Amino acid sequence: MRWPKGLDGLCYGGDWNPEQWPEPVWRHDLALMRQAGVNLVTVGVFAWARLEPEPGRFTFDWLDRILDAAYEAGIRVNLATPTASPPPWFSLRHPEALPVTAEGVRLTHGSRDTYCVAAPAYRAAAARVADALARRYASHPALAMWHVHNEYATDCYCDDVAAAFRRWLRDRHGGLSALNAAWGTAFWGQQYHHWDQVLPPRATRYLPNPHQLLDFRRFLSDELRAAFREQRDLLRAAAPDVPITTNAVFGDWVPVDHRDWANDMDLVSLDAYPEGEEAEEQTAFLGDLARHWAGGRSWLLMEQAPGALRHGGAWVRTVPGQMARLSLSHVARGSRGVMFFQWRASAAGAEQFHPAMVPHAGEHAPIFAEVRDLGAMLPRLAEADAGEVSAQVAIAWDAGSWWALRAPHLPSPDVEYLAALRRAHRWLWRSGVTADFADLGVDLSRYRLVLVPSHFLVDDRQAASVRRYVERGGHLVVWYFSGVADANGHVRLGGVPGAFRDVLGVRVQEWRPLPPGGTVALDDGTLATTWCELVELAGAEVVLRYAEGQLADRPAVTRNRYGAGSAWYVSARLADAAYDRVLAAVSAAAGVGPVVAGLPSGVEVVRRADGVHSWLFVLNHTDRAVRVPVTGWELLSDQSVSGVLMVEPDGVAVIRQENDGVDGRAHGRVPGD
Amino acid sequence: MRWPKGLDGLCYGGDWNPEQWPEPVWRHDLALMRQAGVNLVTVGVFAWARLEPEPGRFTFDWLDRILDAAYEAGIRVNLATPTASPPPWFSLRHPEALPVTAEGVRLTHGSRDTYCVAAPAYRAAAARVADALARRYASHPALAMWHVHNEYATDCYCDDVAAAFRRWLRDRHGGLSALNAAWGTAFWGQQYHHWDQVLPPRATRYLPNPHQLLDFRRFLSDELRAAFREQRDLLRAAAPDVPITTNAVFGDWVPVDHRDWANDMDLVSLDAYPEGEEAEEQTAFLGDLARHWAGGRSWLLMEQAPGALRHGGAWVRTVPGQMARLSLSHVARGSRGVMFFQWRASAAGAEQFHPAMVPHAGEHAPIFAEVRDLGAMLPRLAEADAGEVSAQVAIAWDAGSWWALRAPHLPSPDVEYLAALRRAHRWLWRSGVTADFADLGVDLSRYRLVLVPSHFLVDDRQAASVRRYVERGGHLVVWYFSGVADANGHVRLGGVPGAFRDVLGVRVQEWRPLPPGGTVALDDGTLATTWCELVELAGAEVVLRYAEGQLADRPAVTRNRYGAGSAWYVSARLADAAYDRVLAAVSAAAGVGPVVAGLPSGVEVVRRADGVHSWLFVLNHTDRAVRVPVTGWELLSDQSVSGVLMVEPDGVAVIRQENDGVDGRAHGRVPGD
Amino acid sequence: MRWPKGLDGLCYGGDWNPEQWPEPVWRHDLALMRQAGVNLVTVGVFAWARLEPEPGRFTFDWLDRILDAAYEAGIRVNLATPTASPPPWFSLRHPEALPVTAEGVRLTHGSRDTYCVAAPAYRAAAARVADALARRYASHPALAMWHVHNEYATDCYCDDVAAAFRRWLRDRHGGLSALNAAWGTAFWGQQYHHWDQVLPPRATRYLPNPHQLLDFRRFLSDELRAAFREQRDLLRAAAPDVPITTNAVFGDWVPVDHRDWANDMDLVSLDAYPEGEEAEEQTAFLGDLARHWAGGRSWLLMEQAPGALRHGGAWVRTVPGQMARLSLSHVARGSRGVMFFQWRASAAGAEQFHPAMVPHAGEHAPIFAEVRDLGAMLPRLAEADAGEVSAQVAIAWDAGSWWALRAPHLPSPDVEYLAALRRAHRWLWRSGVTADFADLGVDLSRYRLVLVPSHFLVDDRQAASVRRYVERGGHLVVWYFSGVADANGHVRLGGVPGAFRDVLGVRVQEWRPLPPGGTVALDDGTLATTWCELVELAGAEVVLRYAEGQLADRPAVTRNRYGAGSAWYVSARLADAAYDRVLAAVSAAAGVGPVVAGLPSGVEVVRRADGVHSWLFVLNHTDRAVRVPVTGWELLSDQSVSGVLMVEPDGVAVIRQENDGVDGRAHGRVPGD
Repeated sequence: MRWPKGLDGLCYGGDWNPEQWPEPVWRHDLALMRQAGVNLVTVGVFAWARLEPEPGRFTFDWLDRILDAAYEAGIRVNLATPTASPPPWFSLRHPEALPVTAEGVRLTHGSRDTYCVAAPAYRAAAARVADALARRYASHPALAMWHVHNEYATDCYCDDVAAAFRRWLRDRHGGLSALNAAWGTAFWGQQYHHWDQVLPPRATRYLPNPHQLLDFRRFLSDELRAAFREQRDLLRAAAPDVPITTNAVFGDWVPVDHRDWANDMDLVSLDAYPEGEEAEEQTAFLGDLARHWAGGRSWLLMEQAPGALRHGGAWVRTVPGQMARLSLSHVARGSRGVMFFQWRASAAGAEQFHPAMVPHAGEHAPIFAEVRDLGAMLPRLAEADAGEVSAQVAIAWDAGSWWALRAPHLPSPDVEYLAALRRAHRWLWRSGVTADFADLGVDLSRYRLVLVPSHFLVDDRQAASVRRYVERGGHLVVWYFSGVADANGHVRLGGVPGAFRDVLGVRVQEWRPLPPGGTVALDDGTLATTWCELVELAGAEVVLRYAEGQLADRPAVTRNRYGAGSAWYVSARLADAAYDRVLAAVSAAAGVGPVVAGLPSGVEVVRRADGVHSWLFVLNHTDRAVRVPVTGWELLSDQSVSGVLMVEPDGVAVIRQENDGVDGRAHGRVPGD
Repeated sequence: MRWPKGLDGLCYGGDWNPEQWPEPVWRHDLALMRQAGVNLVTVGVFAWARLEPEPGRFTFDWLDRILDAAYEAGIRVNLATPTASPPPWFSLRHPEALPVTAEGVRLTHGSRDTYCVAAPAYRAAAARVADALARRYASHPALAMWHVHNEYATDCYCDDVAAAFRRWLRDRHGGLSALNAAWGTAFWGQQYHHWDQVLPPRATRYLPNPHQLLDFRRFLSDELRAAFREQRDLLRAAAPDVPITTNAVFGDWVPVDHRDWANDMDLVSLDAYPEGEEAEEQTAFLGDLARHWAGGRSWLLMEQAPGALRHGGAWVRTVPGQMARLSLSHVARGSRGVMFFQWRASAAGAEQFHPAMVPHAGEHAPIFAEVRDLGAMLPRLAEADAGEVSAQVAIAWDAGSWWALRAPHLPSPDVEYLAALRRAHRWLWRSGVTADFADLGVDLSRYRLVLVPSHFLVDDRQAASVRRYVERGGHLVVWYFSGVADANGHVRLGGVPGAFRDVLGVRVQEWRPLPPGGTVALDDGTLATTWCELVELAGAEVVLRYAEGQLADRPAVTRNRYGAGSAWYVSARLADAAYDRVLAAVSAAAGVGPVVAGLPSGVEVVRRADGVHSWLFVLNHTDRAVRVPVTGWELLSDQSVSGVLMVEPDGVAVIRQENDGVDGRAHGRVPGD
Repeated sequence: MRWPKGLDGLCYGGDWNPEQWPEPVWRHDLALMRQAGVNLVTVGVFAWARLEPEPGRFTFDWLDRILDAAYEAGIRVNLATPTASPPPWFSLRHPEALPVTAEGVRLTHGSRDTYCVAAPAYRAAAARVADALARRYASHPALAMWHVHNEYATDCYCDDVAAAFRRWLRDRHGGLSALNAAWGTAFWGQQYHHWDQVLPPRATRYLPNPHQLLDFRRFLSDELRAAFREQRDLLRAAAPDVPITTNAVFGDWVPVDHRDWANDMDLVSLDAYPEGEEAEEQTAFLGDLARHWAGGRSWLLMEQAPGALRHGGAWVRTVPGQMARLSLSHVARGSRGVMFFQWRASAAGAEQFHPAMVPHAGEHAPIFAEVRDLGAMLPRLAEADAGEVSAQVAIAWDAGSWWALRAPHLPSPDVEYLAALRRAHRWLWRSGVTADFADLGVDLSRYRLVLVPSHFLVDDRQAASVRRYVERGGHLVVWYFSGVADANGHVRLGGVPGAFRDVLGVRVQEWRPLPPGGTVALDDGTLATTWCELVELAGAEVVLRYAEGQLADRPAVTRNRYGAGSAWYVSARLADAAYDRVLAAVSAAAGVGPVVAGLPSGVEVVRRADGVHSWLFVLNHTDRAVRVPVTGWELLSDQSVSGVLMVEPDGVAVIRQENDGVDGRAHGRVPGD
């Protein structure tokens, strides 16, 4: 984790595309940025065609002027390589570098992201423009940070990809017979006898091979990462002291293992675009995930939409204060600042209606006042970056399981990975409990409780780690469809939850998905829906039983003492009341509790702490004033709080405390690395 | 506007495809046509393969016999060029002239419309067959009219289209830098540095360029029009006195600016296929639109389905009288006749289940009796064609806005162009008020009221015209998402409704789309749904306010005095009650009223008038007899009406009045041009 | 119909894929099979890549060991040719043999079924591997039966298919002018002037030609059949005494006329996968259909899922006893055994979650106990195979109508062929009446009642047969949209139900589909939905009338005396109450009744009988014990039943009766052919 060069406090700003505007607008922009407290702008993300109007000819003058002007205005630049959007000339010159869908449709330029990452011509051209930028701007005083590419997430099924996939498979599996074993090609007689026969999962007649699908996503992640690394190495060679990131986009279609990529970055950054309801919980989910990718350390919120959330295809305006609340939710979770897409709304182009800090209506529109208010708030919070978030509970995160559960051949449509994780996270969030995400393979002993929803793939290292964790006193909850398969997606025989059978003390004889709309009563009067199982006890005791139908009196939820710890198994998709009851019982047993007890409903508190101080981020997600039982020094109002903090409707507060519990008035540290 | 040659009264008939039947059926058909009062048949629409069984060899004998037989039977022919359905030999010989989808799929013959209009081979072949028809039949006495092609509406994304698109863009924009500016290619770095890089909007990775999409629709309209003109010129050269049309199809997928095309035609004709509910209002909408295309003058209903309406994928039978009512609704709106698709139901082929005037069951089926009755009715109404419809209210129609609002990047799914127009038109229709459609750029002074729903694009000429209109005393209503952009689709900065800000006296600070299902109360107790705005007054007064939520007490509907007129702004999608209340208030202020006051609900009256007479078309859309307060001479029953007209359930009447208000008994004009 | 060689009783077993497992598992499998009573396993279905790892090199040793081991264990083998799943090397070597979609997408290997059946290279390769198998194993003592391919059902639109389609069309229609007539190409001017112009129904612009679609399905059935015959002939040449089958898959997408194919097989076999609700009725439907394909004789249930039914995308566990009940429902309907897919659940591959007889959890899981119980049951029932099912009622089955009604150009979305058949079958099933399916062209005199739902196509032979049937005293019910067209799909003119007008004594003047959600009351208080008609009586009398709307007082259901019989016409889609009332009346008139009177609701009885004995299969589909009024000898419990049989919840019983009504105790036949 390295800090943007030349910036002391939290970052504040957004994507700035001055090349879309005449130069007088640039000067006006910089003046407005200063008003708003902006200290960092992301420049050049989509400027390839402008920078290199024909192959090998670069035009830097305009970018020179932009960086100079920013520097003069005291604003630092997060300089992007423009490789996410090749110019039209590139497509015409290298048609083989245009992406091809699984159905064989070769896409055409006209949008962004329209390239094949495995195409040699693309890689060469991307390296050339990145290198040119690196050499030109390595020592520009405005340069704070490199922003490689934009939201790596593209796929392709062309012949270049096929070749690269084969190389990757050789590295992973060794020879063809290992590949055949890993992909289970004995089934349906798809054994490969020559490497040339191995292809990306292109459109085929019926169900595709699920192991091939899984490996293809893993390959895409690695291939995209290799492209990232090539640029990173060029940038680092030119400017060893400037940190490098690429902004992570997250969504079910994304073939990137962000945790894995983080090892290659100086700074993890996140684009956060919640959709639909529950923006607060989604924000917390994304922020906690980014912190996981960053290894628990600070990261940077690189993009969010100013003042609006996507909902039902519309940009729905946030309520007053919500933009600041969501931004501070990220900071509370480790973000070293707040960045937006984008600074000034484009008059034209495919995102002309994307929200912006300076909208089409101009700087007199209310959003700009909110932008200014938030800009004034952040410097007061900079000291909190010294603190780290520490969680009592971990939710297992596993990119392999995520990807494997997108296959079309599952026993039920209910085994949705992200939905299962979101549900566990939402429960904790509503209970005031801070969550980490964690890989099951790491040392889990710091957690009182580990939650494992739909962890379909489990490798032996992860299984051993979980055993060790529980043995030594940990508390574990495993949900159905976990531990089913090994790392290749082969079912572990003998009954699920294969990898966790011993620690859970159960053996599932049968999956019992319910027909659509079906429910089964449990013996405490609550309900299960969608998914049940026939569970055989093998040491565990019963917590809840099914109370009707074929499974009546059979175990639904179990608990197993294992070593010094306990391991719960949830064999059904519990309806809300049952889910709540089980997690409440588990939390009580594990001694897990909220950051601050006695919080009013709808108020969130996240704690960051270092050896000496704590900073409590208090976010009032309700439309009424609330009283929060805390003591300390409130940074935004710069005043003491003793016993009770009043927070305005939709308001926020950040309380510094000494770790011994007193108010932390004397603190004066600034963050650094 | 030119009248079909050799026809004095209103046209009556339909598509006749005798080449599908043995010759004895032809003779039977002609006898039935005479029974039914048919005087015009459209012939040859799909006869290319029959006319030209191999390239350049024509077989006219069968068509000679058809035209001769029709002439002998006293029936005139609307002779079609068959170019909408090239023969299989054409596709085999010119595979490059088959159309290509945006995804690159080259379609195959086997249906109609399967050609690329920009393919030189297609254009040459179309011209050849049109020319051969022109030369053969120019002076045939049966020939009343030329019917070019059928329902021009095809798109294509092939290389020929790419080349033609580039030529069109050069004409429109001049150089590449102008194109880059117009398309806003600075965004996402899509600048074009060579014309070869400019392509149709083929499948691409993510959001397409909206300006490219808009220009592509404009291009398609012009390219299709050029194909039409080529045929028109050949036909006109051979037969200068025979009028030429092509039948317009209307639907959201259609890339044709019909108003613009009308300048190239002797007679505008319309295919009208209402779908689903509200066939009466849809018919009125389409008829009013066709009159707009025709510049307010007469046009011709070229196709409708006899006795059935499409609903939920089924052909739902019209109720007795409905076919005549809907037909007369078109005549009332300026149609010089009533034509159907098709005369005799096909026993085979893709439209074998399309309704027909003579169904599979034969001429004893009830539909043929209705056809005969309608045929007997029309000659009595011919005189009304001397009258023109005059409307107090205009609804703005703008093909550019229509097309631009089909783009996928809008701030909300609610900004639907046709739905907004349909809603305004429906309100007027239900209020008994006749509507024109109009281009905002023309002199609007003849209207008491101009309604402007979702007029996204506004060019400076249109903006000036609107200003002039209001200044001089006009009344204007503008709905949200109007005036947003210039003719290229670039947002007008400084706050919407950009082009109309001064005349409306408001500035919108923010769009506020609601989440799905959301509503906001207004201060009169009515509701807004889906879309709201934060409106700042800049001279206007408030008519309605938002009454809850973030916008409470802010303006929702405003009215601005501007010069001698007034301009209302509706910033929200109003629920029905609010919509009704606002439009009622505006109408009252503008002095707009129904054609006939005191009409029973469900009864429609449209007036056509010349200098001396009026003809009131009275359409009873209810299933009960009604009393309508009119005086005059009823043409269908040929009797006087004094004060009260009784109209049967589902019945129609046409009343001639002297323009001084008396009964018009003495009228005897026949129409002409 | 020939019996698997070396097997005396009913077949019991499933697909066995030992090549997916190490050899110790094989031995364990065989031991478990013996426990379970398995006597037949299907081997090698997906083993091509293993059998022929490179072109022309065969590796039989592993398969030798499997067959030897099976034989030693006393288990017979249904040996499959592996041609449904070509190896990757085949695709690489013959890319032109990969299938192409109607849109031109060439699919890639990676799944099963990915080949073009018309590709010469595919046919040659398939013949080679089949021939090699035939030569190797023709005289292996384990070989009981040949299983050609798997679930023939693939389509393709490539140039090889085009060529084959043209050959087929020439055979069917003769010359091009006959083809043009048959396809109605005069409509839309699609006349073919050269055979090269004739193509499969590839993606085109608008509605495709429905006659071309219909012929293409017929062609696919014949082309697939030709591929089957090639293999059959090779197998038969090598092993004349071994019967040959291919397992039929049934679903709306399947382009196979199974009745027609049955003529080429020694034994009809069926894969039965009910989906969603009503598994019992679906099972009966499929079993009755398979018996129809087999000409009323025995057939074999080749695949079903052990212990699970597909529902809403999930595998829903059957309730205890249900697997046996559904299996015996097939045996009751003529199946000579019970086979499953598959024996042992795959750990990997696209069907790793498909249910299996030995699940991942192992043989201690409950499903294996059910498998063992069923295996113990079947030998007791073997004698019943001597009996044939005889039905009083036939439902017309017509592959042409099925396929024709999949076209997109119909007058209403309600004319769904399979739904109409399912409805008629379900009514009979619920009424305890056994149904045959029958082609209308055969001698129908054995039936008291013939039901004809949505029989769109009727050829003259079928029309004559129906007339003869009624004339001689038969009872007939014809539903709307029957008799509409001739065998090419051309509408029979003069009013529907064209082919049946005389026998029904009605002429339909107009179809009257209702708008979505519409209903019409009938004069007995019941309702019609979706579809009505304007019916003119031409001899028939009225049974039910429409009671409202435009059709008020017009006939809805009619009955016509014709010769010695009666013919009913149902002109509307009747809601359930009306449907029930009409069919109850018809059944009473025809003297049709349940197999056993006085059955409790939810209990099904099917009778098989030979000259001497009857076997009543009694299936209790309820969750309560029931009393069934029968007398005889119960085979499963091996005890006498006198007057009343108690059947357990979800239980089954099989009663042998002498055909004179006494209890059949003395029976001792074994089946044979």
